[in-house]
Amino acid sequence: MNGTTPRRRGRPPRTEAAGTRDRILTAAREEFSARGYEKTSVRGIAKAAGVDPALVHHYFGSKEQVFEAAVEVAFAPALNASDAVADGPPDGVGERLTRFVLGVWENPATRTPLLAIVRSAVNNDTAAAVFRRLIAAQLMRRIAAPLDLPDAELRAELAAAQLVGTAMLRYVIRLEPLASADLEQLVARLAPVVQHHLTAA
Amino acid sequence: MNGTTPRRRGRPPRTEAAGTRDRILTAAREEFSARGYEKTSVRGIAKAAGVDPALVHHYFGSKEQVFEAAVEVAFAPALNASDAVADGPPDGVGERLTRFVLGVWENPATRTPLLAIVRSAVNNDTAAAVFRRLIAAQLMRRIAAPLDLPDAELRAELAAAQLVGTAMLRYVIRLEPLASADLEQLVARLAPVVQHHLTAA
Repeated sequence: MNGTTPRRRGRPPRTEAAGTRDRILTAAREEFSARGYEKTSVRGIAKAAGVDPALVHHYFGSKEQVFEAAVEVAFAPALNASDAVADGPPDGVGERLTRFVLGVWENPATRTPLLAIVRSAVNNDTAAAVFRRLIAAQLMRRIAAPLDLPDAELRAELAAAQLVGTAMLRYVIRLEPLASADLEQLVARLAPVVQHHLTAA
Repeated sequence: MNGTTPRRRGRPPRTEAAGTRDRILTAAREEFSARGYEKTSVRGIAKAAGVDPALVHHYFGSKEQVFEAAVEVAFAPALNASDAVADGPPDGVGERLTRFVLGVWENPATRTPLLAIVRSAVNNDTAAAVFRRLIAAQLMRRIAAPLDLPDAELRAELAAAQLVGTAMLRYVIRLEPLASADLEQLVARLAPVVQHHLTAA
């Protein structure tokens, strides 16, 4: 924040600051979704939000930190739902996790930002690191914690791998017959495998 | 092929043509690996191969067709090996397929072009279509054919999804503890699941 942009003295009032921060986050999500991590710039996000680039740096820091904040907001509902996945009866965790992951991908509103995150993470090491921190530290540990088994984290990741791979081939590559397979047929085939990874002796 | 580049009359001798074609293919693989599908141009491939762009069009056609030829060459050893995966005893197909896929990813020489293909397919619909044609039509059908079960192709794709997802999280996103897990430990956990997808009643 140097003096090139005229600003009032002191902090903006709380509600105005929250509004600006949200506007930047929304613009960031749209820019990262449309262009991917590498082609998105702090300047472009600022322009889309109608603010000075210095304000983006002020609220979030670097481009990586804006990305992390945008991904965190996009994932917040999923992380809340993951508590319900982890906390129910252990013998149904495979089906709950399968329905949860496929449900996020079936819904176009959540599929689009998720696809942007996956594309960024596959193409850019910085975006991959954000993906690791959020998914690994939060989603995987929540799933693994109640299992109370040796190798619980590896088990959770191999269960996730089945679902990540299914999502890749069905929604991204659109391989047939998987891309057109009935959702309940997929749940019936996948849930026992996910359950096996998570809880089999 | 218009007359802007001086050429001898008639076809070049077979050996010379094969040498030029191979040089273009090698350059194409390197360009696609380094830049991804979208940023690679026929002009750039021609430059790297030291030939006129018209010659790239002459041998391969469009950029999509050069990509398909480059991917096909990169996958040829894998497709040959997949016969051995499909043709052995049915009760070992899960372990053979698991070792085969993880082996391709463990080897840096095959991991690099594969990573380039995956990145291109995730980011570009044309590259995804090439991936579908080669992987679906060839690899998946070879695995599915000897199973002789209803839904054999869907089964093969869900088995592949387990291995694709594992490769994504282990080699691309590098999620721990999966990224550092012992290969034999992974085979022990994955082979029964892959076998289940392929042959369980």
